[in-house]
Amino acid sequence: MKTYVNEIKENENVDSLFLVKEKFSGITKTGNTYLKLKLGDRTGEMEGRIWTSAEVFSESFEKDDFVHVKGKMTSFQEHLQLNVSHIERVGEEAILLSDFFPMTEKDIEGMFQSLIETSQQVKNPHLCQLLQLFWEDEAFVKRFKMVPASKWVHHAFLGGLLEHTLSLSQLVLKNANHYVGLNLDLLLTASILHDLGKVDELLYTRSFNYSDEGQLLGHIILGIERVEDKIRQLIDFPRDLSTLLKHLLISHHGQYIWGSPKKPMTLEAVMLHYLDDMDAKITGIQQFLRTQVSEGSKWSAYHRAFEQFFYASTAVDLPEIPEKSDKNGLKEE
Amino acid sequence: MKTYVNEIKENENVDSLFLVKEKFSGITKTGNTYLKLKLGDRTGEMEGRIWTSAEVFSESFEKDDFVHVKGKMTSFQEHLQLNVSHIERVGEEAILLSDFFPMTEKDIEGMFQSLIETSQQVKNPHLCQLLQLFWEDEAFVKRFKMVPASKWVHHAFLGGLLEHTLSLSQLVLKNANHYVGLNLDLLLTASILHDLGKVDELLYTRSFNYSDEGQLLGHIILGIERVEDKIRQLIDFPRDLSTLLKHLLISHHGQYIWGSPKKPMTLEAVMLHYLDDMDAKITGIQQFLRTQVSEGSKWSAYHRAFEQFFYASTAVDLPEIPEKSDKNGLKEE
Amino acid sequence: MKTYVNEIKENENVDSLFLVKEKFSGITKTGNTYLKLKLGDRTGEMEGRIWTSAEVFSESFEKDDFVHVKGKMTSFQEHLQLNVSHIERVGEEAILLSDFFPMTEKDIEGMFQSLIETSQQVKNPHLCQLLQLFWEDEAFVKRFKMVPASKWVHHAFLGGLLEHTLSLSQLVLKNANHYVGLNLDLLLTASILHDLGKVDELLYTRSFNYSDEGQLLGHIILGIERVEDKIRQLIDFPRDLSTLLKHLLISHHGQYIWGSPKKPMTLEAVMLHYLDDMDAKITGIQQFLRTQVSEGSKWSAYHRAFEQFFYASTAVDLPEIPEKSDKNGLKEE
Amino acid sequence: MKTYVNEIKENENVDSLFLVKEKFSGITKTGNTYLKLKLGDRTGEMEGRIWTSAEVFSESFEKDDFVHVKGKMTSFQEHLQLNVSHIERVGEEAILLSDFFPMTEKDIEGMFQSLIETSQQVKNPHLCQLLQLFWEDEAFVKRFKMVPASKWVHHAFLGGLLEHTLSLSQLVLKNANHYVGLNLDLLLTASILHDLGKVDELLYTRSFNYSDEGQLLGHIILGIERVEDKIRQLIDFPRDLSTLLKHLLISHHGQYIWGSPKKPMTLEAVMLHYLDDMDAKITGIQQFLRTQVSEGSKWSAYHRAFEQFFYASTAVDLPEIPEKSDKNGLKEE
Amino acid sequence: MKTYVNEIKENENVDSLFLVKEKFSGITKTGNTYLKLKLGDRTGEMEGRIWTSAEVFSESFEKDDFVHVKGKMTSFQEHLQLNVSHIERVGEEAILLSDFFPMTEKDIEGMFQSLIETSQQVKNPHLCQLLQLFWEDEAFVKRFKMVPASKWVHHAFLGGLLEHTLSLSQLVLKNANHYVGLNLDLLLTASILHDLGKVDELLYTRSFNYSDEGQLLGHIILGIERVEDKIRQLIDFPRDLSTLLKHLLISHHGQYIWGSPKKPMTLEAVMLHYLDDMDAKITGIQQFLRTQVSEGSKWSAYHRAFEQFFYASTAVDLPEIPEKSDKNGLKEE
Amino acid sequence: MKTYVNEIKENENVDSLFLVKEKFSGITKTGNTYLKLKLGDRTGEMEGRIWTSAEVFSESFEKDDFVHVKGKMTSFQEHLQLNVSHIERVGEEAILLSDFFPMTEKDIEGMFQSLIETSQQVKNPHLCQLLQLFWEDEAFVKRFKMVPASKWVHHAFLGGLLEHTLSLSQLVLKNANHYVGLNLDLLLTASILHDLGKVDELLYTRSFNYSDEGQLLGHIILGIERVEDKIRQLIDFPRDLSTLLKHLLISHHGQYIWGSPKKPMTLEAVMLHYLDDMDAKITGIQQFLRTQVSEGSKWSAYHRAFEQFFYASTAVDLPEIPEKSDKNGLKEE
Repeated sequence: MKTYVNEIKENENVDSLFLVKEKFSGITKTGNTYLKLKLGDRTGEMEGRIWTSAEVFSESFEKDDFVHVKGKMTSFQEHLQLNVSHIERVGEEAILLSDFFPMTEKDIEGMFQSLIETSQQVKNPHLCQLLQLFWEDEAFVKRFKMVPASKWVHHAFLGGLLEHTLSLSQLVLKNANHYVGLNLDLLLTASILHDLGKVDELLYTRSFNYSDEGQLLGHIILGIERVEDKIRQLIDFPRDLSTLLKHLLISHHGQYIWGSPKKPMTLEAVMLHYLDDMDAKITGIQQFLRTQVSEGSKWSAYHRAFEQFFYASTAVDLPEIPEKSDKNGLKEE
Repeated sequence: MKTYVNEIKENENVDSLFLVKEKFSGITKTGNTYLKLKLGDRTGEMEGRIWTSAEVFSESFEKDDFVHVKGKMTSFQEHLQLNVSHIERVGEEAILLSDFFPMTEKDIEGMFQSLIETSQQVKNPHLCQLLQLFWEDEAFVKRFKMVPASKWVHHAFLGGLLEHTLSLSQLVLKNANHYVGLNLDLLLTASILHDLGKVDELLYTRSFNYSDEGQLLGHIILGIERVEDKIRQLIDFPRDLSTLLKHLLISHHGQYIWGSPKKPMTLEAVMLHYLDDMDAKITGIQQFLRTQVSEGSKWSAYHRAFEQFFYASTAVDLPEIPEKSDKNGLKEE
Repeated sequence: MKTYVNEIKENENVDSLFLVKEKFSGITKTGNTYLKLKLGDRTGEMEGRIWTSAEVFSESFEKDDFVHVKGKMTSFQEHLQLNVSHIERVGEEAILLSDFFPMTEKDIEGMFQSLIETSQQVKNPHLCQLLQLFWEDEAFVKRFKMVPASKWVHHAFLGGLLEHTLSLSQLVLKNANHYVGLNLDLLLTASILHDLGKVDELLYTRSFNYSDEGQLLGHIILGIERVEDKIRQLIDFPRDLSTLLKHLLISHHGQYIWGSPKKPMTLEAVMLHYLDDMDAKITGIQQFLRTQVSEGSKWSAYHRAFEQFFYASTAVDLPEIPEKSDKNGLKEE
Repeated sequence: MKTYVNEIKENENVDSLFLVKEKFSGITKTGNTYLKLKLGDRTGEMEGRIWTSAEVFSESFEKDDFVHVKGKMTSFQEHLQLNVSHIERVGEEAILLSDFFPMTEKDIEGMFQSLIETSQQVKNPHLCQLLQLFWEDEAFVKRFKMVPASKWVHHAFLGGLLEHTLSLSQLVLKNANHYVGLNLDLLLTASILHDLGKVDELLYTRSFNYSDEGQLLGHIILGIERVEDKIRQLIDFPRDLSTLLKHLLISHHGQYIWGSPKKPMTLEAVMLHYLDDMDAKITGIQQFLRTQVSEGSKWSAYHRAFEQFFYASTAVDLPEIPEKSDKNGLKEE
Repeated sequence: MKTYVNEIKENENVDSLFLVKEKFSGITKTGNTYLKLKLGDRTGEMEGRIWTSAEVFSESFEKDDFVHVKGKMTSFQEHLQLNVSHIERVGEEAILLSDFFPMTEKDIEGMFQSLIETSQQVKNPHLCQLLQLFWEDEAFVKRFKMVPASKWVHHAFLGGLLEHTLSLSQLVLKNANHYVGLNLDLLLTASILHDLGKVDELLYTRSFNYSDEGQLLGHIILGIERVEDKIRQLIDFPRDLSTLLKHLLISHHGQYIWGSPKKPMTLEAVMLHYLDDMDAKITGIQQFLRTQVSEGSKWSAYHRAFEQFFYASTAVDLPEIPEKSDKNGLKEE
Repeated sequence: MKTYVNEIKENENVDSLFLVKEKFSGITKTGNTYLKLKLGDRTGEMEGRIWTSAEVFSESFEKDDFVHVKGKMTSFQEHLQLNVSHIERVGEEAILLSDFFPMTEKDIEGMFQSLIETSQQVKNPHLCQLLQLFWEDEAFVKRFKMVPASKWVHHAFLGGLLEHTLSLSQLVLKNANHYVGLNLDLLLTASILHDLGKVDELLYTRSFNYSDEGQLLGHIILGIERVEDKIRQLIDFPRDLSTLLKHLLISHHGQYIWGSPKKPMTLEAVMLHYLDDMDAKITGIQQFLRTQVSEGSKWSAYHRAFEQFFYASTAVDLPEIPEKSDKNGLKEE
């Protein structure tokens, strides 16, 4: 069973799995080689030292490997340090990603099931088939369930893309029929596919970061390529429909300045942009408020991306009306 | 019964009510005074001339008066011109505003009833009382039901503010519970009151235009004053609640550059801004598409406020899947 | 042989090909149907009228058709008007596009040959094969040779894309080796392919305009799809190389605000952006100066896209040094 | 011979020249005055202490002086510290600036000779004479050869202005004849003179910094004054030519926001701006990539002025085509 | 005596001076040459025709000449047209510029005298001498008294620069001593010289327009050159003082985006910018209100440069307090 | 009498009042509770420790309390630390705010008296009564005299709002009559009331910070509410006058982007904005120069709000003219 970094106390023996975040070798005053490590998991990081057989151990693992570590937590000059007696590399299959990175608090399989069901509300057979092709693509689905929705702004946790996608598709269901003349099939399909390029844009098995092609091309281009790849496998997918769908995907950021090469030009594209942006902002702020509000304060820290503070006082607990007021609340003048 | 400008044909006799949009006096070659008028209603404008007793008639009405006109439509140098034989000023109570200005296609009383019902979902007694005070203010309610939501961008018709307000409150009901921790009472109340300053900002009984105080102060300031005026009449309205509510009202434009003196700082304020903006944009674009798309074109004219074109092809009629495709739609390769 | 609109004089008989730019039917005072046409070619537009057999002729052609017209130029109320006695639709193959739209002054086949030769300087076999696939795609090449580079800003004439592409590839050859460490193969290939999506973005056989998918997706997305389509046909095209190439294509506008979803992140992408922008600006200004400078003025009209005036005085003719100056030109003080 | 800071090891004796970067005096626990110094050269900085005769030595040198130092490198609480036994001020003529500041890797005299030769391609006699006056101005030439092109953005090393100027003039030679109608003489002269005001704007003999007049007036104004000063010495320099030349100099930043009081209005000014900007960006990025890419990373640090990351992987080494592909590289489908 | 365009009535004989604003020659139906003119003065423009001896007259004057015209005002198709019987060119010395262009309503010599007196408050001898040199430069003073301060934004009339300069120097006198530590001499001198480059930037003897060097260099650069030219004539003008003064001149627009190559960096430069901008805005708005407010309206037309409307109702006439209020004005509650 | 933090030396006994800026409790190695404090006043902060009876003392005061402290200054590991032997909470009435926060150097009562006198120059009886109501509101006046004008940008000291308000009203008196047609009464009243919402926006009795309603609503909204509250108490205050006055208050920031919901639309509003901005900038820069210029430097630190450096060299001491110049200062050429 996993022992978490933030649980280990001085003098405890440790026998668990960690991620090697840094690895340097040094020479002791007596001329021996030692290894200086930073070991981490979801809960934090700790210093580690290998004083014995350092050269042998050093060849068996690298930075960014997951490792099985045995050792004892010691205190050196007021800092805790894990004295490592044994270390060996383990494969990715041996670990649980959720031990190492923040993860959605919701059930991934449950969310995925809900998304499949939502996608089944799409009536247009071409769009149905397109979605179906994605659900049958196992490699895609595996990554789609785990990838975060962003590096740190919103849904920055394992399962984040799935959570955001499900949320957006549900918002679409709630809002599309509020207006006459919007095409629900197009909106639903686009809401499900809008960020799928993040499957290629983001890396999440060592840290949350951009892949090279994510950085150089971005999830809009990468997503269009995945969609185009599936459409090519379908018979007679109408070119007009493909163009309209892709337009929603490439315009969902809403403005050139936010990386969309086209502004929304159809009513569906306009709605998708607003709901996507609202979902990202609200959940992003909620995540920020959970971590960036000091004890006892009603105000968050300064949010550098939004260039403002947020008011954290829970509006839910609005003050009750006092008993002394008369029944209609009017002042007696 | 009203005879509309766009129905009057050459040689027809006219006996109906119109609005005087322009009024100039001139001198004929024979030295007589004549009046040159522009008369209008909801459907357009027409030229009018008073050749007889012009000086007498001239004293009895002014530009921007509603008038009862008798005359005959004549043709002069290929243009139609109403030869006016009798004209007299009528009071505002004699006309139907909807004969003269575009009007919501929905039922005003029905919408108002729905809004009242929506407002009754507010549980917090202070907010209930506040809303109640507005509904009991007859002068306010009368204007609130008729004023357009803007001069031309969105909901630019009689009843527009009511239609937009009802729409926004319904969007709030659909979206507020999508997230945990948003205060529905605050959101509902703010959605109902968010644009109420437009009651003072806009004039609509002669043309849709800004009042002087609308131009100089704007509906955010004017709305805050109306809200403050009601709150002052209530016993023990909590200062915190008042501050939170006003924050939603003043920040609902979302950005300084759009005239909000504060950016949204609470989750409720963020949601209100997005839903308000989405409703204004979508209905504004719908209105634009209805009038600014040439026959046979799939594209609107250039929208100067949004600096773009819109695609008008009704996405609703997506192409059907052809019969010849096999059951799963995959190409046979 | 083509008779051009700007050559036709009053009372001349006309027998030539034109493009129908507008077509309306009307009723004469005597109750007969007539047709009101606007007929055009590269040199201008003229009014046309069909007074006889209008209903019969009307069924045989539509707006935007090319037509063979016989008639006589007449004068009506100081305006010239073509009195059409015969009109019939002709196919696109019967006309020369250059009779109807502005065309490059350079030789299209010669430019294309130069571009092929330039592309042969690419050494990397993958990139060679990719370019080769495009050159073998006859439908593509046919459009690539004719499409303008833009609707009106720069190279807005038939053959414009080819002319701009050749110019850019030559600029790349001149500048790439000025710095150490830039990859010429990548730069050359990207310069040749950078705007190829314009083949799909722009229509040029009736007027210079955007296609629906051009408007909704834009040439960057459309170009990426064409490139991806070719790469898919190649064995083992390296993913890294594909990513780097696509990065140059999508970032060549240089800024989000100019429609690039990524900013240039490699040295090659930075250079491509500058040279492309310089070529577009300089040739765009040259085109503007040719048409937008009043007789006798040294200044152009106001350029609305660049928000400035340009100085048109030909700097080439700098003043000669006067004979009276001494040999080193210094003042004698 | 110079001993460099980054070469000195514990317990070594030092006898070399350094620049005094900081100088503070303190009191030891025993009540004696000591001096705390920061001494530097091109390779870094080190701490220094004078424990003996501190008051006497203190009077003989100041911060920003070059000094001859004798002493021994010691270790105190894990930090190295030079124990200074002797120190005395030396004049600027005693040192080599390149020992103290980064310097171009190219040969200054060689570059200057190339620039002279380039300037000799100018045919217009007025412009020739103008350039000649600059080359004959020894005080100017001395600074022109050494001054960096900027404080830190690009060419931020001794000889940087010369290197950038030569590079730009060569780019002009390569690109000017690509278009018809650009005046090479004007372009060449402006490229050579465009940044000459930096001779007055930047200080480089103590640190790279702005002079007071550099900060208050900037190199565009200072450059114009130097050019005007030379033109005044010439007979009959045409006013038109002077205006056109100055226009290129003041508009070369391209936009108001980048400090140009006029935007480029002639074709020559447009080209000069693009080539200057391209040269500054590409060499600036190259310099950034050399220092701001972590070991093993393909990505640079975040560039704050350009607000982005750069991709550092050398594109030169594109992947070779694998042997197994068939001769035309097409997939066998 | 001048007969003004807006005073001439049908059938009147005209014998006065005008400016030729347009001049075209045509051929009458009978094959004779005639001239079509547009003649103007300060009060407007009128059409003119020369039917007789047109070819002879045509050689004696050109567009932009002042001419002595004899003729008779006739009416043709409801438009007035001057039938010219005689026309001949007159020199500039024969006319009063104020007959042809709007002119300050203040006394030019009186304003100039006030400015001289204001300049005599400068105590610093270097600055005194500098100002003195300008006042002794007759060619400069002649233009300085007449040139408008801008083409149309503010003080766009003859004498406008002088009026604005005097106004600014008086504002400086009123505000400089409001704060401790601002140098009045520097502020006064800079206020007097801040826009002097407009003497070269603007043409005003045919229409208000930019000179070529005005357009290409702008009044900031042109002004610096005039100041530098004078300073060069003075002995020992301190370099520091010159730098500080020029800094005020080049930074007085306040922002890069408004064409200043440096932002104000001294307290004097900050104040000069604010007062200059305030004077230009207030007088510009006053001028706009005088011409751009419709009869009976309280609102100006839309001001395109400032992107807003202005409220024209004269605030001076604030409502008087009614008699019925009690002495302290409090409501009796 | 107050002992100030920056005066206390090692080994001194302390018996004075301080503000508790931080308060944490810890456990000594021997298992006893101790308190770790940060104590401050206007002159700085110091560390404090309570080793004895810590738990008892801890209950008697909190962070942000003013306390009476007895103890002795000791040195621990080169840092000074106050060893507290006694501590107890005191009420706000026991302290002088000016002992704890920076305060205007001017006399508060004197400034207030000047402001009253200035306000008496207002002739319009409605505006007089309005001002009078504010002066009679003791709670308002008390805060108005003490509140700073901002948290840190300008007038960030006790009495700052009063000082800024008085300064602005005096600037109005100096500048209003410089132009014809500005209403002095309106300008004076608005200058006095323009920032009064800061009385509610800022907290200053523990640190300079925003109140919750200050952050959520801002001083423009809060000020309008206070003005409206007073106007409501007056008989027959004209609605037009109220609208004009409020327009000046809400537009005084000048631009949307600076938080004004309306841009200045009257001449008075334009002037008020310029003078207010000038006063804030100049006094803000003066305050910045006093603290942010290094010894011996002529340049300030980088000002992050204004994004520039300021030149600090006192321009007052301009160089004197040297004796050797001849009487008119001209060079002898």
